[in-house]
Amino acid sequence: MAIDVQNLLAPDLREMLEAGDTVGLREFCEALHPATVADILVTLRPEQAWQVLAHASPQRQAEIFQYLPEAYQHRMIEVAPRERMAAIIEAMDPDDRVDLLKSLDSELREAILPLVARAEREDIRRLLQYPEDSVGAVMTTDYVALPEETTAGEALARLRLLAPDRETIYYIYVVDQDRRLRGVVSLRQLILARPQTRLRDLMTRDVISVRVDEDKEVAARTLARYDFIALPVVDADGRLVGIVTHDDVMDVLVEAATEDVHRLGGVEPLTESYMDSSLVHIAWKRGVWLTILFVAELGTRHILAWGSEVFRQLFLLYAFLPLIMSSGGNSGSQSATLITRALALGEIGPRDWWRVLWRESLMGILLGLLLGALAVAEALFETDTALELVPVVASTLAAVVLCGTLIGSLMPLVLSSLKLDPGIASSPFVASIMDVVSTVVLITVAHLVLLATGT
Amino acid sequence: MAIDVQNLLAPDLREMLEAGDTVGLREFCEALHPATVADILVTLRPEQAWQVLAHASPQRQAEIFQYLPEAYQHRMIEVAPRERMAAIIEAMDPDDRVDLLKSLDSELREAILPLVARAEREDIRRLLQYPEDSVGAVMTTDYVALPEETTAGEALARLRLLAPDRETIYYIYVVDQDRRLRGVVSLRQLILARPQTRLRDLMTRDVISVRVDEDKEVAARTLARYDFIALPVVDADGRLVGIVTHDDVMDVLVEAATEDVHRLGGVEPLTESYMDSSLVHIAWKRGVWLTILFVAELGTRHILAWGSEVFRQLFLLYAFLPLIMSSGGNSGSQSATLITRALALGEIGPRDWWRVLWRESLMGILLGLLLGALAVAEALFETDTALELVPVVASTLAAVVLCGTLIGSLMPLVLSSLKLDPGIASSPFVASIMDVVSTVVLITVAHLVLLATGT
Repeated sequence: MAIDVQNLLAPDLREMLEAGDTVGLREFCEALHPATVADILVTLRPEQAWQVLAHASPQRQAEIFQYLPEAYQHRMIEVAPRERMAAIIEAMDPDDRVDLLKSLDSELREAILPLVARAEREDIRRLLQYPEDSVGAVMTTDYVALPEETTAGEALARLRLLAPDRETIYYIYVVDQDRRLRGVVSLRQLILARPQTRLRDLMTRDVISVRVDEDKEVAARTLARYDFIALPVVDADGRLVGIVTHDDVMDVLVEAATEDVHRLGGVEPLTESYMDSSLVHIAWKRGVWLTILFVAELGTRHILAWGSEVFRQLFLLYAFLPLIMSSGGNSGSQSATLITRALALGEIGPRDWWRVLWRESLMGILLGLLLGALAVAEALFETDTALELVPVVASTLAAVVLCGTLIGSLMPLVLSSLKLDPGIASSPFVASIMDVVSTVVLITVAHLVLLATGT
Repeated sequence: MAIDVQNLLAPDLREMLEAGDTVGLREFCEALHPATVADILVTLRPEQAWQVLAHASPQRQAEIFQYLPEAYQHRMIEVAPRERMAAIIEAMDPDDRVDLLKSLDSELREAILPLVARAEREDIRRLLQYPEDSVGAVMTTDYVALPEETTAGEALARLRLLAPDRETIYYIYVVDQDRRLRGVVSLRQLILARPQTRLRDLMTRDVISVRVDEDKEVAARTLARYDFIALPVVDADGRLVGIVTHDDVMDVLVEAATEDVHRLGGVEPLTESYMDSSLVHIAWKRGVWLTILFVAELGTRHILAWGSEVFRQLFLLYAFLPLIMSSGGNSGSQSATLITRALALGEIGPRDWWRVLWRESLMGILLGLLLGALAVAEALFETDTALELVPVVASTLAAVVLCGTLIGSLMPLVLSSLKLDPGIASSPFVASIMDVVSTVVLITVAHLVLLATGT
């Protein structure tokens, strides 16, 4: 839909800009959703985008600016007077402006910050200090907090004053004189209550909150589990310091999923979108893993050279090598993927280790029998298979698939208990390790069979 | 946190149940968040869970029931009288109860449905008819819709009446006499407005909505893009038929990411969580792909048998085979992963085909040179490498990595333009195809080099 609007309205916008149609441009900025305005602005040059924005209030300019892609925001900042940029930063939501400032190089940031009004600047400095992946880095400080003695009627009156400035007015957090979080009242409860009821008698006391120093994914999972619109954030002393809102949580969840997907595919997660990332950046993120995997894979070369006697005697066995390696790698990738995702979703905890390993052992035996049987079936249908190779290939396949499920499920479990990202056990990484394991198994099995048959 | 609460309160709950502590059990059901109650209930047997729930109002019972995992819901339904179940279904949210009924086998569903009150039953039948992945399948019918002439004061009074029953009262949808969607007013706007203002003069007319028959992921992306709490759903004639809320969208996004991750790891997406899925179910979802990949991989066996002459002459070349195959597979997996995720996030559209291929070609050349250089470096450090193999291995590696980026990026693009899931181009699948390609490239290069040197 965004794309339709873009195609429909972009020519109109250009016309209005050329004709200097002040009324039309103001209407464009104010009547559409800021995200829609942003979608259309990106079709213009940054200088033109500023000309359009000049027709909106500073508040509105900030709202639209927040919806622009980061790369385009940077292009706009390059061509803007710093005073103008500071005014927009003052009007932006606290969490969004901190994200923006973090993405700028520190020199530019330090040039703009002194121009920002003092209260906002202090808020920015406070939020900037939280570590990258913490709850503090995604929270906003625009919430409504009121004392317990406030009545419902007074609270509504306060909300009317505060609403234009607050990111959400749908929850009112109730705090004591030390700002310690005591309860929460939803706007829904407030509207239903008699005006003279005190918040103390209205509030839910079992408040679910997160600590400011926890991982932001914890906040995301908590909010998603309880279906909240926002989640209060407290410091170590239980004092309210911010809220995390549903829209930011959605971004956290999508971003986390993208990181998982990239890691599982053997790419260090990109910091920007694929199209916005430079080739050099992507080449670096890929090259690191390609090199690591290349080195891991060198193991196979040495093992194969060491076992070359087996292949001299059973010459056509080498033709089965890729089949065996890929089967081991595939079953390993599958296990690693299932376990990594289940860990990410919180479906598996450290206590489930033994159950997981037990399940994956059974799974490995089941799938190993399947592939062993497939190998026998293939040999019966193909006339060119050397029959003496069939037992070697079938039993190697079964063993390798079992090794795959065990190694593939153990790796993410071990990584997560070492507090590392289980996603490091990516499909390519597990496949490389399985290539080494498969080679050893194949050579060992072939050796045993050769010994047994006395060849 | 859920886990802490579970460990802390579960023993208390069991004690209250044994002592028949009616007051304590009611307090337990009513004071905690329904999700927390659900987390603790699952530690009991289903019969005991029903005994606990009996102390709550039907509305509260339904709220708690909605937060139970599907497998546990089924166990509770098995042991419950059907009339009791029907009463809970009447009180559940329209979207949640339809999800539940869909998960039951049709015989049980048809046994319970006639016991449900008529209005709810009709609503259920209507929602049941929407296809699995459509917006209709995740929307709810509990929204607030009012005519344009309503004043802000009247609207607030109506909200007070409706609030207990409606899933969200934070948006009021404005409809004409044919229920066509004309505008939207947020509760925030309503509170700020003077009581005598009519909704007509208050409402945003540029309403962003989704069609009931669109894919649910479209609704999820739209809501996430615009940071809404809920999104109105209209039929083909623009009539309002439901809303999709932020919490359901979060579930859709997480579920979609899980499907993508599973597919990329070469597993058909599971329908339940890893721990709740039966071994047979998982074995089936994995076995399908293992078999497909096994058959694809048979190609390598035939090509290797066909090219065996090359390996007879350059005997130690076979030891490089896994290294070459895995490098091709890895670079292919990386490209497939990046492109699949970018397609899923809507970062890449059909129009970007050529730009993607151009970028991936450059990337392939860059990374190919890297791995070719690594192979040369390795040969210089290792004394046991047969030097005549170095040019064959290095140039094959470079060629294979380039093929990997091209095939890995083309596959998801082609699949998505055929309206298939780009995730079919999983890491293991791309790796299998690259094994075949790598074998052909290696044999061809070796052949050319042998010819050139006149061996």
